[in-house]
Amino acid sequence: MTVVHVQAQRTMRAAIFEAPWTITVGDRPYPEVVEPTDAVVRVVLSSVCGTDVSPYRGEAPFEPGPIGHEFVGVVEDVGTDVRDITKGDLVIAPTAYSDGTCPHCRAGITTACVAGGFWTVGGIDGGQGEAVRVPFADATLVRVPGSDHSEATMRSLLALSDVMGTGHHAAVSAGVEPGSVVAVIGDGAVGLCAIIAAQRLGAGRIIALSRNPIRQALARSFGATDVVAERGDGAAAAVLKLTDGVGVDAALECVGTGQSFTTAVAVTRPGGMVGYVGVPHDVQVPIDTMFLRNVGLRGGAAPVRTYIPELLDDVLQGRIDPGRVFDFETDLEGIAEAYAAMDERRAVKSLIRLGAI
Amino acid sequence: MTVVHVQAQRTMRAAIFEAPWTITVGDRPYPEVVEPTDAVVRVVLSSVCGTDVSPYRGEAPFEPGPIGHEFVGVVEDVGTDVRDITKGDLVIAPTAYSDGTCPHCRAGITTACVAGGFWTVGGIDGGQGEAVRVPFADATLVRVPGSDHSEATMRSLLALSDVMGTGHHAAVSAGVEPGSVVAVIGDGAVGLCAIIAAQRLGAGRIIALSRNPIRQALARSFGATDVVAERGDGAAAAVLKLTDGVGVDAALECVGTGQSFTTAVAVTRPGGMVGYVGVPHDVQVPIDTMFLRNVGLRGGAAPVRTYIPELLDDVLQGRIDPGRVFDFETDLEGIAEAYAAMDERRAVKSLIRLGAI
Repeated sequence: MTVVHVQAQRTMRAAIFEAPWTITVGDRPYPEVVEPTDAVVRVVLSSVCGTDVSPYRGEAPFEPGPIGHEFVGVVEDVGTDVRDITKGDLVIAPTAYSDGTCPHCRAGITTACVAGGFWTVGGIDGGQGEAVRVPFADATLVRVPGSDHSEATMRSLLALSDVMGTGHHAAVSAGVEPGSVVAVIGDGAVGLCAIIAAQRLGAGRIIALSRNPIRQALARSFGATDVVAERGDGAAAAVLKLTDGVGVDAALECVGTGQSFTTAVAVTRPGGMVGYVGVPHDVQVPIDTMFLRNVGLRGGAAPVRTYIPELLDDVLQGRIDPGRVFDFETDLEGIAEAYAAMDERRAVKSLIRLGAI
Repeated sequence: MTVVHVQAQRTMRAAIFEAPWTITVGDRPYPEVVEPTDAVVRVVLSSVCGTDVSPYRGEAPFEPGPIGHEFVGVVEDVGTDVRDITKGDLVIAPTAYSDGTCPHCRAGITTACVAGGFWTVGGIDGGQGEAVRVPFADATLVRVPGSDHSEATMRSLLALSDVMGTGHHAAVSAGVEPGSVVAVIGDGAVGLCAIIAAQRLGAGRIIALSRNPIRQALARSFGATDVVAERGDGAAAAVLKLTDGVGVDAALECVGTGQSFTTAVAVTRPGGMVGYVGVPHDVQVPIDTMFLRNVGLRGGAAPVRTYIPELLDDVLQGRIDPGRVFDFETDLEGIAEAYAAMDERRAVKSLIRLGAI
């Protein structure tokens, strides 16, 4: 006779993408260290990204299962090969995990890590849940010094997990430098963070494209010097008028639609650059216009990990406050409403509060 | 009774684009100074460009009339407001005329000059003829010091009117710098000049894509360290293999087809740049791949005028010899054969000899 000892598996609560328009909360196995370079992070704050809302709307494919890729938390456990990250650390997780040693990581493009990957893919947990197994913990996570941070700082740390670094990538890709004349296409959280980034890099003028009064006000408070409410051809005409017909040095494309690309190219001066970070959806790049006007295009999936250290310093010193993009909050059980608020544009960005430090 | 004095109008011989596959030589009015900023240049050497061959093949629209945009010559006459260019000067004409004072000229993008334009358009002569009226002569033309240049130097001066500056623009747009690993897509005259440009900017490795033994040899003599004979997916695989799977820092796209863009993006490392100067023909930019891999794209109609001074210095010092791309020569009356030789790829590039200095 064989006695089978069944140990109840520890579970956690996590958001589950069931199908478009259906995000639920369900039980998942509590993550454990698998590889010696792993850490397990208990999530404190998480958030909903525009790239989560796209599959929610049925506009982008997504596998049913865990969702979310923006979180800060506390390290609960680490594998035997983890050196720099220790239990109890407050950490920021970027949008992708990466080994930190491959040629692409060394070149700063951590999102192209040959051994890395994205949250929710290949059995890795999503960020919208109670805990996450984090591969290559030393290279992936960024430890935040101190543990007694204000609520405002905590929100800004959460913004560093994606949108602030992504907006920064748009600005860096477009070559924003002191004195640059910049246009920001997109008034979502990434666009608003791109304004912060452009100001931080010394832009002389920042033209924000937004029709929403609340977002316009936030844009101005982040450093926008001009706001254009028109869209499409009207927006391009307005930006050209503001720049004496010349166009901007750098257009930060933070939407990802064909129209936003067309507008970005149209407002950029000959020789200027479009920095793009909006995931392209059915975009036909206007290459003939770009050729005639020598407008360049650079960007992509933001290597947020690379940028966190310098941006973190600015957050901790109080020089930037990207956490102000969060204007909706719920606990995990209210996740469906967090998505609905963003889908209906009632919220710029939704924060999910899962625990305390 | 009215006496009408008819003065015989002075004429010149010039190449005429009649229709695809039909380039003839006809009589045109000899150009005269019209605006006080004009010069009239007697053409000494002219050449046929790939962008001339495209309409010859019926692959690009072109208005019947004069053709050609690459020439060096001697100044015959200048308007009253021309200060720096004088009669008798040996000059290089870039691919476009420009006023040198508008915001785009000041930013170096002379091809976007608000008052400028291209040869053969709007009543301006083409470069494949005995003489050309040159608007904004001071800003457009570059005077060449000395008058006793070798045949080899004269050919390199002619290359500076377009292909050398265009190849250089690809390299500059792609950010080639000392040590860069570079791939050059296209073994035409522009691609070969892009190799010269990459070597000149200090590239550590230059991979040329070419199947033609003569062009391969020329590529190596210009500085190519590796030659890949495959095309399409095979070419991309070969370049990736040569770079240990990483890809190149900079891909110089000197063709302008969908396949060449796809190859350029495929061989570029994440975070790298494609510099493109081939006029795009039905190109669908692979934006999704570019996004995932953070491959940028910059270039366009090369502002050759901006680059001539620094390249001229290198030609006169004997450091570069782009004139070696000319491997077919005729006089103006043989122009049809100059086109046919390039169309049939019997020639890399055709030179038209119109006169002496």
